[in-house]
Amino acid sequence: MSKVPSDIEIAQGAKMLPIADIAKDWDILDDELELYGKYKAKISLDIFKRLENKENAKLVLVTAINPTPAGEGKSTTTVGLGQALNKVGKKAVIALREPSLGPVFGVKGGAAGGGYSQVVPMEDINLHFTGDMHAITTANNLLSAAIDNHIQQGNELNIDARQITWKRVLDMNDRNLRSVVVGLGPKGNGFVREDGFMITVASEVMAVLCLATDLMDLKRRFGEMVIGYNYEGAPVYAKELGVHGAMAMLFKDAIKPNIVQTLENTPALIHGGPFANIAHGCNSIMATKLGLKLGDYLVTEAGFGADLGAEKFLNIKCRYGGFSPDAVVIVATIRALKMHGGVNKKELSGENVEALDKGFANLEKQVENIRKFGLPALVAINKFATDTQAEIDLLIKKCEDAGVDVVLNECWEKGGEGGIEMAEKLVSMIEGETPDFKFIYDEKQPIEEKVNAIVTEIYGGRGAVFSGKAKKQIKKLEELGLDKLPVCMAKTQYSLSDNQNLLGAPKDFDITVQEVRVSNGAGFIVCLTGNIMVMPGLPKVPSANRMDIDEDGNISGLF
Amino acid sequence: MSKVPSDIEIAQGAKMLPIADIAKDWDILDDELELYGKYKAKISLDIFKRLENKENAKLVLVTAINPTPAGEGKSTTTVGLGQALNKVGKKAVIALREPSLGPVFGVKGGAAGGGYSQVVPMEDINLHFTGDMHAITTANNLLSAAIDNHIQQGNELNIDARQITWKRVLDMNDRNLRSVVVGLGPKGNGFVREDGFMITVASEVMAVLCLATDLMDLKRRFGEMVIGYNYEGAPVYAKELGVHGAMAMLFKDAIKPNIVQTLENTPALIHGGPFANIAHGCNSIMATKLGLKLGDYLVTEAGFGADLGAEKFLNIKCRYGGFSPDAVVIVATIRALKMHGGVNKKELSGENVEALDKGFANLEKQVENIRKFGLPALVAINKFATDTQAEIDLLIKKCEDAGVDVVLNECWEKGGEGGIEMAEKLVSMIEGETPDFKFIYDEKQPIEEKVNAIVTEIYGGRGAVFSGKAKKQIKKLEELGLDKLPVCMAKTQYSLSDNQNLLGAPKDFDITVQEVRVSNGAGFIVCLTGNIMVMPGLPKVPSANRMDIDEDGNISGLF
Repeated sequence: MSKVPSDIEIAQGAKMLPIADIAKDWDILDDELELYGKYKAKISLDIFKRLENKENAKLVLVTAINPTPAGEGKSTTTVGLGQALNKVGKKAVIALREPSLGPVFGVKGGAAGGGYSQVVPMEDINLHFTGDMHAITTANNLLSAAIDNHIQQGNELNIDARQITWKRVLDMNDRNLRSVVVGLGPKGNGFVREDGFMITVASEVMAVLCLATDLMDLKRRFGEMVIGYNYEGAPVYAKELGVHGAMAMLFKDAIKPNIVQTLENTPALIHGGPFANIAHGCNSIMATKLGLKLGDYLVTEAGFGADLGAEKFLNIKCRYGGFSPDAVVIVATIRALKMHGGVNKKELSGENVEALDKGFANLEKQVENIRKFGLPALVAINKFATDTQAEIDLLIKKCEDAGVDVVLNECWEKGGEGGIEMAEKLVSMIEGETPDFKFIYDEKQPIEEKVNAIVTEIYGGRGAVFSGKAKKQIKKLEELGLDKLPVCMAKTQYSLSDNQNLLGAPKDFDITVQEVRVSNGAGFIVCLTGNIMVMPGLPKVPSANRMDIDEDGNISGLF
Repeated sequence: MSKVPSDIEIAQGAKMLPIADIAKDWDILDDELELYGKYKAKISLDIFKRLENKENAKLVLVTAINPTPAGEGKSTTTVGLGQALNKVGKKAVIALREPSLGPVFGVKGGAAGGGYSQVVPMEDINLHFTGDMHAITTANNLLSAAIDNHIQQGNELNIDARQITWKRVLDMNDRNLRSVVVGLGPKGNGFVREDGFMITVASEVMAVLCLATDLMDLKRRFGEMVIGYNYEGAPVYAKELGVHGAMAMLFKDAIKPNIVQTLENTPALIHGGPFANIAHGCNSIMATKLGLKLGDYLVTEAGFGADLGAEKFLNIKCRYGGFSPDAVVIVATIRALKMHGGVNKKELSGENVEALDKGFANLEKQVENIRKFGLPALVAINKFATDTQAEIDLLIKKCEDAGVDVVLNECWEKGGEGGIEMAEKLVSMIEGETPDFKFIYDEKQPIEEKVNAIVTEIYGGRGAVFSGKAKKQIKKLEELGLDKLPVCMAKTQYSLSDNQNLLGAPKDFDITVQEVRVSNGAGFIVCLTGNIMVMPGLPKVPSANRMDIDEDGNISGLF
């Protein structure tokens, strides 16, 4: 068994450099750095002008097989790969999503990679960080207050209170706020209506932050958000309420990417973290753009497995950001592949080559999908102490038989050192060759066609079935001319299908789209295949109950 | 008429020094300063150990007559006095409350002093600042989520959902959240109950932050907060829910006082900003303690007029902080005194010595009150361009006749230069003499006696009348042993009485206490004399609608 200490022990023992020193090494000017304490900073958007003509770095996306309770280690591999690239003589920057506070108090605890591949200071990153989440909460709820105030003050826009789609948000796991009635009491308290709170990361404001290309684009997108419908059925846009300027103003700092470091002092840009189901699940375009200007390599990740995260990264984020990735790393663990092969969680420790053989289908399908985008894929096996040599040999052989590049990575246990082979293989795959990146669909196609392309090409299903409700909604979006946007699938992350119990690489299934919504400011159409939880709850004993701080400010229980 | 430009024009034209330079000049070590950009920082609590044996500065409280729509300029005078003291050779620091975001979007716009006596950078101070408000919102709502989750998970504490007194909060003016029903929907959404949102500054978490003397005291006070009652009628404390450690953890940075500067580069500590009605309305004890260690003079202010703000500063904050003020400055304007003398707002521009003569009674009563605390008072007339010489002469003469020190101040128009006479007068009042400061009541007295002391001594009323409900609540607090705390009066700020239309210095009135609540973590008993608005609404055209940001990040409309 490994003797690696706990994540928080490693993080608290990290030898951090002042972030100003790291910034200097990476060609960020003093005037472009806005310190938040000694170890975190924001980077002024002025840097884009200065580096405008600098050649872009190579762009590497880290994704994974469909997640299982066994874990994959996508963030760990992203961090480790960045560290490893620096060890093999490349200047590499990583770009990650910001963690949400809500889940910190729930089941999850802190989140910023693991083992010797973490970003630090982990307490700061997990608790408020530089305040971006709070700016999102405030801007979202300012719009909510403006909507209800508009109705209260005479409702000139004729907003139908029954058709307000804009929800309030809080960065908290709080199930009691999922469904509420607001405006009770005397007439001074507003009109009574049904409402609900989502967790902040589910806000369209978050998705807008992550897809905006600059401050004016951010403001424009805020204005384009649809907040609901009027009594004539016409959409009401946020700009009609006149607070999109104030919303953008709240982002005067939050729009700037944050910089921290890994345990090995590799720069990490952490900025934005939208949901990976009702939104696209990647860090901000601005952080990615910035990372591409700072080094030779930018390593970034996308939420959930490749069928959701990578698909949206490639079809949505790359479309709006004008990005063309150079390679995709697909993280897999032998444990998780055995689960895809039918083993249950309790029996994962024992060797089981048959299950691995069977579960390999999930990995193979994800590789195939990446190649459909015209991109080279590298499978990175995140090594666990319980993996047997027979299992490792089988997995490597199966990859080789399928013509798939594969490498073992031990970034969790050994940091960058454990990813050197991965880094070298990646570099040799990338350098010299520019892939012919292409989207899976054209955003001008009808909504049904776009969804069908994803279902057949990526999920490996027969096709999409649309509920009556979804059909009506699609027809309405077409009438309103709001249908010419990329689609954002809201589907279970556990299966390539919309049934979370179908592991491996299922075939002959349909995907049922129950509901269709437009996120017009973010710029995508959300297709829901089932109920998506947008406000988590707390468990019987929340993580918050083990958390504490002592008189010297030392934090415990955040792991 | 004055040619002074608008507040935001002056603020945006300010010649700020890097806050690190100011900190160095004021004996704050590099390692004790945590920068948030170039012009704002937090100060590590480690500084208290280093400066433990340093002699305390003189403590000056700035308060005012009862506010009127004509305005007084308390913050402006506080800032101007700090600047002026530095001009006359004293090292002076000022300590102020943090503005709340909610009112920024409502009627008020930004708030950080005025004219040439402002704190800067005003955009930062008004928008998120260093995130303290967000830490309060999060900690408050974590406790709310923990309460509902406890009930959902089996309700071991037997919490009576009808008697939960703990409310959720948002830093937003949002009337539709005043009265809500939460927990609707299937059983996974929690139990249905009535709830309400307050604005963040009304949270007891804010009051605790401002009255805590260190991090462990903060955590202890969080634990002592009463969140409601169980089915046996016994109080349920936050510590029983086990999240007070996590709440304190959220304050790892927010507990540290913030430092910014005035337009003349005087250091300003801005930390905490509780409501001045249901709470005590002053900046944090920690900021005040820190300011007392940094210079020769610390100038601070308290919310509303002297009957509420100064009374609570002296009876509550000084009690918990162990502070003994050296003098109190009472700000008055001739315009406001004329309103106290019966003139309505539209007729204020014309000379009216009779009304001034009559309205003087309000000022005279406030001076008398300060003297009851054993403290010397200085009246500072905040000069307006419309004040006539006859009016100024009369006001000075009336002060002199009453044996009251008085001085004209022109800090708004001239910055520190306009407050030199005020500063000199204050220094000559203070130096050499240590006043014999005393409280108006002993916190061990019965609640009714404490309230009566305030009503008769400070308000000038006959006494307090308690509603049947209040009597029952007092009896319950006595039974629970929760009555031995200072009282915090929640009363209209516009009058010495509880009737906002009784201006001047009314006599022969009773104060009716409608309701009594304990803020056991903050450490006071709130006595409500009427409905106190804890969640403001937005006006017909909110300030948010004029606010904007341009492509270079310049903010407009924040005034």
